[in-house]
Amino acid sequence: MPKVEFSYFPVKALGEGPRLLMSYGGQEFDDIRVTMEDWPALKPSTPFGQLPVLNMNGKKYAQSVALSRYFGRKYGLVGATPEQDLEIDMTVDFVNDIRAKAALVHYEKDEAIQKAKHEDFSKNLYPDMLSKLNNIAGQNSGHLAAGKLTWGDFIFAGMYDYLKVMLRMPDLDTKYPNLKKIADNVYALPQLKNYLANAPKTEI
Amino acid sequence: MPKVEFSYFPVKALGEGPRLLMSYGGQEFDDIRVTMEDWPALKPSTPFGQLPVLNMNGKKYAQSVALSRYFGRKYGLVGATPEQDLEIDMTVDFVNDIRAKAALVHYEKDEAIQKAKHEDFSKNLYPDMLSKLNNIAGQNSGHLAAGKLTWGDFIFAGMYDYLKVMLRMPDLDTKYPNLKKIADNVYALPQLKNYLANAPKTEI
Repeated sequence: MPKVEFSYFPVKALGEGPRLLMSYGGQEFDDIRVTMEDWPALKPSTPFGQLPVLNMNGKKYAQSVALSRYFGRKYGLVGATPEQDLEIDMTVDFVNDIRAKAALVHYEKDEAIQKAKHEDFSKNLYPDMLSKLNNIAGQNSGHLAAGKLTWGDFIFAGMYDYLKVMLRMPDLDTKYPNLKKIADNVYALPQLKNYLANAPKTEI
Repeated sequence: MPKVEFSYFPVKALGEGPRLLMSYGGQEFDDIRVTMEDWPALKPSTPFGQLPVLNMNGKKYAQSVALSRYFGRKYGLVGATPEQDLEIDMTVDFVNDIRAKAALVHYEKDEAIQKAKHEDFSKNLYPDMLSKLNNIAGQNSGHLAAGKLTWGDFIFAGMYDYLKVMLRMPDLDTKYPNLKKIADNVYALPQLKNYLANAPKTEI
């Protein structure tokens, strides 16, 4: 496939999954990192007013998970059966539910509400959700689903640091060690060596 | 396929998409409607502590969108190319972003915050998001993507009333008429006649 353009903010977060997948598949891409200063001018030209955006064959595509599934399918990083694909999809959507909850805290502007929300979620939501996900990763040999490497793992690995910050859980690695294994299994892939050596280092 | 069990709350909302898809495909299912009274006892036995749950061949699957994609694939309600599938996936994820924003208002417990949020979103988010989606539906002949009926339309049709309530937009039909067309196109399918005649009537 000819070179494509991939635009996202200068962080890993929701853009790194597709970046890692394209690197894995040998898809050349312009790795465009849009600063917050440039974003307002670009926003109206995106399909949904959001990043990431993939510009491929003159058409613009969006949504991190949808793009990752697309590349995963292209590179054979899918299930062996429709039921395994369902398993990947549902677990990725569950990861997304966790991310969305943590984002509610992270992007809350009122400090008092932010604090209260974090305490509420840390007590009533995160332990159950994260231990469920940790168990799933344990049962799947350090993968999200289907007991093997799939595109879902790339999404999760790409947002792992972001998740850690939003969950305010610097000890996520040791608290739910199977989650780190998912990320480690992706970042150890030889196909990613070149991209990882050259990509900008970012905290999230 | 043998009969399956499908459990969700006694509303359409996020459960109706899979129910409509199974009805369309002739998949027999136990349409289990879990009351809020019974939910706490059931919750720990679900994959993610959430409904809907599909019990199929002795295994439990979850997540509304993932289940809908699974049935859509089974019944040929997919794109003709991987790029069309990407288009369906990304638009469904965008619908989900709209739903998630409206849910933040709908499920907010503090009345003052709820009011402020609704005003903020009604001014700064909904018009842009809904007109984008309305344009997409216009360009796709009353469908979400690919210019034809796909599983994404079932998800959208199933949550249309729920969306209307959460957006607090009783005039959604006339304000963004192409969105109603997506729902109408699904509900007019002859394959759904029997299910729709017998399913409980619910507001959302």
